[in-house]
Amino acid sequence: MSGVSEVVVILDRPTQPGNIGAVARAMKNMGLSRLRLVAPAQFPHPEAVAFASGAQDLLAGAEVFESVTQAIADIHWLVATSTRNRGQRQRIVTPRELAGLMLDRPAGQRIGWLFGTERTGLETRDLERADLICHIPTAAAYTSLNLAQAVLLLAYEWMLAEGRESSMARDPLQEGVADKGEMERLFLHMEESLRAIDFLKEGQDRHMMGSLRALFHRAGLDRREVAILRGVFHEMTSSRRRASGGE
Amino acid sequence: MSGVSEVVVILDRPTQPGNIGAVARAMKNMGLSRLRLVAPAQFPHPEAVAFASGAQDLLAGAEVFESVTQAIADIHWLVATSTRNRGQRQRIVTPRELAGLMLDRPAGQRIGWLFGTERTGLETRDLERADLICHIPTAAAYTSLNLAQAVLLLAYEWMLAEGRESSMARDPLQEGVADKGEMERLFLHMEESLRAIDFLKEGQDRHMMGSLRALFHRAGLDRREVAILRGVFHEMTSSRRRASGGE
Repeated sequence: MSGVSEVVVILDRPTQPGNIGAVARAMKNMGLSRLRLVAPAQFPHPEAVAFASGAQDLLAGAEVFESVTQAIADIHWLVATSTRNRGQRQRIVTPRELAGLMLDRPAGQRIGWLFGTERTGLETRDLERADLICHIPTAAAYTSLNLAQAVLLLAYEWMLAEGRESSMARDPLQEGVADKGEMERLFLHMEESLRAIDFLKEGQDRHMMGSLRALFHRAGLDRREVAILRGVFHEMTSSRRRASGGE
Repeated sequence: MSGVSEVVVILDRPTQPGNIGAVARAMKNMGLSRLRLVAPAQFPHPEAVAFASGAQDLLAGAEVFESVTQAIADIHWLVATSTRNRGQRQRIVTPRELAGLMLDRPAGQRIGWLFGTERTGLETRDLERADLICHIPTAAAYTSLNLAQAVLLLAYEWMLAEGRESSMARDPLQEGVADKGEMERLFLHMEESLRAIDFLKEGQDRHMMGSLRALFHRAGLDRREVAILRGVFHEMTSSRRRASGGE
């Protein structure tokens, strides 16, 4: 779990009520619950309910605003999604990179994800308000994602980054995914070993270990991989001891 | 690019023509093109065309079969998607793990992804034919994914694993994602260093390096992270030299 207090999905002027429902379903599938609508063309609407399927509670709780300004007033960190490069100055990240950055946000922050209207996306004015732009990678031949698909991919990456998912994944041949305790022991071993070989230097340790943690969290290690890495760290230090004539 | 020659998406008895269209759109968004339908309730259908949006060419090229047996006849490696654990014996993986395993398939293979009918999923008989089961992680509170969303997530992970995506991601402060050449130099440096500290032993090298490659590919390293890791490998060997009295 990260320090992010909540993620708010904000749809700017959605034209198709079916899309609003499909967004609600995608959000609930990935464990999000806060939906805001800016000047929806039609809402509430039976088509939204039909597409929401089992996520009708999200529709019922959706907040409606007249402008983006009002909808983002209490947001601490705003991410705008965009399919076009309009010469923005902000950093542009993928959903996976976004999820990694969100893990590093200070505790208690309310994060907003702002999605533009179906055909034309966000206005330049609204893009400029964002702290960060998120662009979803697609095949070059067909880049136009459905609104609910876009929301799904951001929410999916965020759920995995936070480790909130319910997964049936298992491998009869392996012991499965490393749990948080195993990951912490791995990071401790990593830090000790990197200190032993003088890679980590006082002062920059925390930043460097933070980068390495983010990388291995992102990879999602299984137990066998943790064992491989710990084997590497063990040899790193014991090889050094052997070379120095100890043992 | 992997050795996989093509990925075929196979929908078993889809009931909603809109879903077939939405699947086609999701596939094209992520660079897939081969769609097969087993006994669709209604196809062709104007609703499929409407939901396909710019992916109508995939609908036009879709192949229709009477049975799963016929639809999978030329498939070399079959992956069944399932939302329930029905006591299958096969390995169950996430879409991200699946993409990693597909990268390791022998060259020239045709891979099939089999998706069940909307309400009840795949029949046990069809699950049993699969080489592998893929289960998509969701929030525990609402696990029922729309068919097109399920296809999207598998296709998204596979596109990223193959590095086929068109991405606008950029960071004015960084140099961005490591390219294949940088990754190969990293792996070479890694192998040399692990050999130097006697972690890699003759005979098991290839298997071990394959595991490490898969892990770091999955993480998707940027240049700064590659530099950090190469710094670690540099210190691993030079610290050993210093300890042994050289330099």
